[in-house]
Amino acid sequence: MNNKNIFMREAIDLAMENMNTKNGGPFGAVVVKDGKVIGRGVNTVTTHNDPTAHAEVNAIRDACANLKDFQLADCEIYSSCEPCPMCLGAIYWARPAKLYFAATKDDAAAAGFDDSEIYTEISLPKNERKIPTEQLLHKEAEKVFENWIELDDKIEY
Amino acid sequence: MNNKNIFMREAIDLAMENMNTKNGGPFGAVVVKDGKVIGRGVNTVTTHNDPTAHAEVNAIRDACANLKDFQLADCEIYSSCEPCPMCLGAIYWARPAKLYFAATKDDAAAAGFDDSEIYTEISLPKNERKIPTEQLLHKEAEKVFENWIELDDKIEY
Repeated sequence: MNNKNIFMREAIDLAMENMNTKNGGPFGAVVVKDGKVIGRGVNTVTTHNDPTAHAEVNAIRDACANLKDFQLADCEIYSSCEPCPMCLGAIYWARPAKLYFAATKDDAAAAGFDDSEIYTEISLPKNERKIPTEQLLHKEAEKVFENWIELDDKIEY
Repeated sequence: MNNKNIFMREAIDLAMENMNTKNGGPFGAVVVKDGKVIGRGVNTVTTHNDPTAHAEVNAIRDACANLKDFQLADCEIYSSCEPCPMCLGAIYWARPAKLYFAATKDDAAAAGFDDSEIYTEISLPKNERKIPTEQLLHKEAEKVFENWIELDDKIEY
């Protein structure tokens, strides 16, 4: 078995173990750099009372803590399932070199998870989404960005 | 000023303060339930080495920790800026009743943030995205979901 499959099997094994130990949903992910696993994550939504604690988010947090960096340059992410929009967004912010996944968002949907529905919602105009959304105080908030643009010594990301 | 504007001004003030203290990007968010703020968040990506530590994600985590729940039923989220796809995904998983935002994703893009680009990427087919994406071991991962569907006493979310 090639290395890619070895890393993916680790992600799948994490998912299976996480489910069997009742630690959370059936999802696992690993982050690899230079041929070594530098971060691991499993779904801990229900045990940590954290709806953002998906496997990929947890793996990214773990890898970034280990690298002491807020970017995953030259890293690969292996996820047991196609990332939901939250996790795909997290992956874009972490900027790894490549993403591997195993199960699809349709598999996740068939198992009762909202991934596929959230993809649909995100692509809708704001006023057509299920969560009602309203804009307030636009001009006051614009000033924050105007100040940011002028700010010296800022760390961009 | 009505209550909605008071809560939004708190989110904007958090964003401004977070930028001025060099704690992170110019973003703030609060979670409100029954007319009270039950969670707050600012962007701590660069100071915590965590690309997922956006204001909304941090506010959701804070509110959920305070509620000891992984859902934000009957809550409202006030964000100083329109959520990026990661944060919007997190909001869908948290399932609040309503979302308020102030600045837009285009304002964020003009200030150097990738929000708007990530919205475009997420809506593309996987093989057209900038981060190369490859599927591996689909059949092995399907088994995890088959077991999940059969699992007794699972906590769904």
